Amino acid sequence: MWKGLLDQLLNGMMVRDRLLVRFPDGDSRHYGPDIGETVQIAINDPATIRALCLHPELALGEAFMDGSLVLIDTNLDDLLRVLLRNRDAGDMPAWVVSSDRFRYHLRRIVQRNSPVRARANVAHHYDMSDELYRLFLDTDMQYSCAYFTDPKMSLEAAQEAKKAHIAAKLCLEPGQHVLDIGCGWGGLALTLARDYDVRVTGITLSENQLRTARTRAEAEGLSDRVQFFLEDYRDTQGIFDRIVSVGMLEHVGLPNFDTYFTRLHDLLTPDGIALIHAIGRSAPPMPHSAWLNKYIFPGGYVPSLSEIAGPMERAGLWQSDIEIWRLHYARTLRAWRKRFEANSDKLREMYDDRFLAMFRYYFAICIASFEHQAQAVYQFQLARKRDSVPLTRDYLYRHPSRLPPQRATTS
Amino acid sequence: MWKGLLDQLLNGMMVRDRLLVRFPDGDSRHYGPDIGETVQIAINDPATIRALCLHPELALGEAFMDGSLVLIDTNLDDLLRVLLRNRDAGDMPAWVVSSDRFRYHLRRIVQRNSPVRARANVAHHYDMSDELYRLFLDTDMQYSCAYFTDPKMSLEAAQEAKKAHIAAKLCLEPGQHVLDIGCGWGGLALTLARDYDVRVTGITLSENQLRTARTRAEAEGLSDRVQFFLEDYRDTQGIFDRIVSVGMLEHVGLPNFDTYFTRLHDLLTPDGIALIHAIGRSAPPMPHSAWLNKYIFPGGYVPSLSEIAGPMERAGLWQSDIEIWRLHYARTLRAWRKRFEANSDKLREMYDDRFLAMFRYYFAICIASFEHQAQAVYQFQLARKRDSVPLTRDYLYRHPSRLPPQRATTS
Repeated sequence: MWKGLLDQLLNGMMVRDRLLVRFPDGDSRHYGPDIGETVQIAINDPATIRALCLHPELALGEAFMDGSLVLIDTNLDDLLRVLLRNRDAGDMPAWVVSSDRFRYHLRRIVQRNSPVRARANVAHHYDMSDELYRLFLDTDMQYSCAYFTDPKMSLEAAQEAKKAHIAAKLCLEPGQHVLDIGCGWGGLALTLARDYDVRVTGITLSENQLRTARTRAEAEGLSDRVQFFLEDYRDTQGIFDRIVSVGMLEHVGLPNFDTYFTRLHDLLTPDGIALIHAIGRSAPPMPHSAWLNKYIFPGGYVPSLSEIAGPMERAGLWQSDIEIWRLHYARTLRAWRKRFEANSDKLREMYDDRFLAMFRYYFAICIASFEHQAQAVYQFQLARKRDSVPLTRDYLYRHPSRLPPQRATTS
Repeated sequence: MWKGLLDQLLNGMMVRDRLLVRFPDGDSRHYGPDIGETVQIAINDPATIRALCLHPELALGEAFMDGSLVLIDTNLDDLLRVLLRNRDAGDMPAWVVSSDRFRYHLRRIVQRNSPVRARANVAHHYDMSDELYRLFLDTDMQYSCAYFTDPKMSLEAAQEAKKAHIAAKLCLEPGQHVLDIGCGWGGLALTLARDYDVRVTGITLSENQLRTARTRAEAEGLSDRVQFFLEDYRDTQGIFDRIVSVGMLEHVGLPNFDTYFTRLHDLLTPDGIALIHAIGRSAPPMPHSAWLNKYIFPGGYVPSLSEIAGPMERAGLWQSDIEIWRLHYARTLRAWRKRFEANSDKLREMYDDRFLAMFRYYFAICIASFEHQAQAVYQFQLARKRDSVPLTRDYLYRHPSRLPPQRATTS
């Protein structure tokens, strides 16, 4: 029965490329026309056939992690590209479509990410050992999209360029107080304090990140100007000249968007400026990857602009610039993966095969979503007043604007 | 009775400034605290009191046009600024709030602007004599927001800068075919053909604009490369490398947004790029000014980003850049008004007092909405592919990028 249902699913879906499947009973079948690419997999376990029928997206990742689905003369990027392309072009069976739709609407209502749940969600991923992240991130531990102003740039340089671009959009003046919501391991906060002469309060829900960020501030002699706290954005008190939040909106949860943007408004001075950097979809809303939600980012969701615009408007914030970075995150992820693979000996000492396969699948599915789905990085520059930000965007591109002021003058 | 209701309305609304009103029976009253600005009007006619109660926004403009409401030691800009500020801060009576809400929801459903209706809407405003527009617009007859890259720029220079910025966002290559939806008197189409060596098809629903645009193309010897048609965007056939549409989305009508953006998608080549320049609200949706709808722009509506994002997404278009111009339109309108007033002798020969008052009110209410309400100009750069547009925005700011290539090389 399950094999028949999988036949039905794959026959409807594979309309552009060809998928060869070797089944556990030795049977081999092919799906789709012989015109596009050809990819091949083997399924080693009858239970995997059933799982792929019932929840194909989740089951594919799980079967790859468990080794119950293996690739034959095919790499994972190619397999995912082909599957996504055909899923978008072909027809998925009604039971898959309706289950996706159910999950999407459920999340719109229940993904409230209460402070307790939010902290557990963060701990799941970010409180894995810092050592793991050191083995694939840049030296500053920027765990978000880099900005490749030149395609030949190193990851380190592209992360520097990202921070400088964000700093330029914040229109910083010495002595200002900046709030960094979701500060990670503190790299951006320390850079702003060091190079732009501002005070920074960074908040995170990850204990590992907090500890590392504080250690770094101490080591750099910046503890007087940069403070880090284990704090939910809903609990933050005070008034800030600037707010920056990088890669955090994805963890907020749709039902909290109004709360999030209203907090930004209320925490800003009347002349305040905020810069929100987050993954978004340049396409209609769709459910988040069930596999990513289960294994990497519980509570995570990539919103469409149509889901973000209303909450921004209702919060009373001016939209002063909206930049959309396409493909920068795919390059970033490819750079991370390259470092991850270069350190595979060390990683094998630390983790089992399933964990490493999970990380490989994580990188591959994210790369595919930026290269072949509608994912991009959105930078929303928001302000309480229409003229807090210069009236043209020239100030962002005055060369050498990319260098922070302190470095520009010493060079 | 009506005076009592107007008392109730003004007492609830005037919470920040003071409004003095002289009534037709000689009675004088004041509303609001004695802490902000003070503005003063006289009402000369009992019917105006009733109209102001029932539909304050529409009646204010009409009473100003008719002279049944006059300003005492107060200019129109100050009066409108004070009224808008207090309306936003204070409470409007339930009958006004519910009537506004009714009008908003009605328009969301019925403002379909059928091709026949759209043409009548356009004729109402744009088919007034070209001579009128020559008396306040720049020499190129750009009837949309200019781009003041330097606050000291002339209107002519700022309109040139606007066209150059739009051209840069279109990433034009010689020989490409550009569709200009809502081409006005042809200034942008002619500039693109002349300075960027592209072919342009411009469409308008105004017979006057069509005639003038064709005459200009002929006079400039560009008729082989620029063609103008009296055509609805819903009827356009063909495939275009680029689409530009300036100040047109405001006339489309909310129920047609999906049709409009889907037309953009379908009329573009797979590598195509579109640039949509339109007035939007950086705030939640609200009903369009009833006065503007009745006297200036029938069928017009200024949408919020939250109303535009969904249709863009559903059309399958990539959002590759969203720029938000704040205050540029207020400057443009002030420059138009200055020219209008400088030509008031000529205008008085052509039009009666009521018409001139209507235009003064039109300029003033629009200036107020850009300076004191949440109106701004949005430029949406859209593409069918994620990488048709360069991956950073540097190309827009490479100086002297502001000059079109033909002029840059000859200078």
